[in-house]
Amino acid sequence: MAENRKLANEELNRISPEEYKQVRKLPIVVVLDNVRSLNNIGSVFRTSDALGVEQIYLCGISGTPPHREIHKTALGAEDSVPWQYFESTIDAIKHLEQQEYKIVSLEQTEKSISLTDYAPTFDRKYALVFGNEVKGVDQAVVNLSHECLEIPQFGTKHSFNISVTAAIVLWDFFSKVKP
Amino acid sequence: MAENRKLANEELNRISPEEYKQVRKLPIVVVLDNVRSLNNIGSVFRTSDALGVEQIYLCGISGTPPHREIHKTALGAEDSVPWQYFESTIDAIKHLEQQEYKIVSLEQTEKSISLTDYAPTFDRKYALVFGNEVKGVDQAVVNLSHECLEIPQFGTKHSFNISVTAAIVLWDFFSKVKP
Repeated sequence: MAENRKLANEELNRISPEEYKQVRKLPIVVVLDNVRSLNNIGSVFRTSDALGVEQIYLCGISGTPPHREIHKTALGAEDSVPWQYFESTIDAIKHLEQQEYKIVSLEQTEKSISLTDYAPTFDRKYALVFGNEVKGVDQAVVNLSHECLEIPQFGTKHSFNISVTAAIVLWDFFSKVKP
Repeated sequence: MAENRKLANEELNRISPEEYKQVRKLPIVVVLDNVRSLNNIGSVFRTSDALGVEQIYLCGISGTPPHREIHKTALGAEDSVPWQYFESTIDAIKHLEQQEYKIVSLEQTEKSISLTDYAPTFDRKYALVFGNEVKGVDQAVVNLSHECLEIPQFGTKHSFNISVTAAIVLWDFFSKVKP
């Protein structure tokens, strides 16, 4: 495949944070339940910016912008994606439930559904909850969730980094609904 | 959703590196073209382990296991997924082409296809090439590729971290073919 020129940065149709506000969004709020790593939080901002996530809720010990370590992986996406901070993830979930979001936690549970089989219907709004790097999503938050989703895994580890989990799940939702 | 108990680690059906060798793999070789960050390399190992990638080719300046920084994000997946080192990415590509792999580079080019529209056919084998954090896939490698793929992006940044790109693309291939 000769003659397949790489595009320069200025050819990529990047938009400004102001323009970003006008773009049609995925009806998804990302909820971070006590995520410790600021690099992970920054990476979730960057992925959310690229795929047009509506908002990020940062809960508990999750750090908030502005922060040098978040900026390192978010590279400015922390200025385009709106976010809110909640001291308690439970409060964040209840707030979203009142607004009729479907609460979906990413967690391996007795009743979790494989992401492969999951068919999001975009006549409704989703809150996707990602948990702490070690403890995962808190059991109390799982209990308040309408559904739990897991990414099928076949290897020796059975756990993904949270920035990788968020990327896979957000891409999967995006590609199933193509807004 | 009450009574949805989180699973303990020992309930996750994790397999040993020995058992991993016997598992049916995705017919995919991941090629890392001069990837600088050892954390990114480790993360690609972890994702490849989980989704059953056949092999990883580490090329040019890409670091190789064993390495403390790779281990930090691979968490042992560097022992389960087979890998080879090539000084030149071009040599790696030619080697794969001789074995009839379809060479697909992740790069935004004049002719790149959106991942959303891409339909891998699993009667053949794929080499997926991911490039350097700053420079992307080398133009000479792009020229030798059968196709280029890009992840559609709508935000202010238009670039993903390489570990996130690999996760999205590997998941997309996996979910389109369900081995």
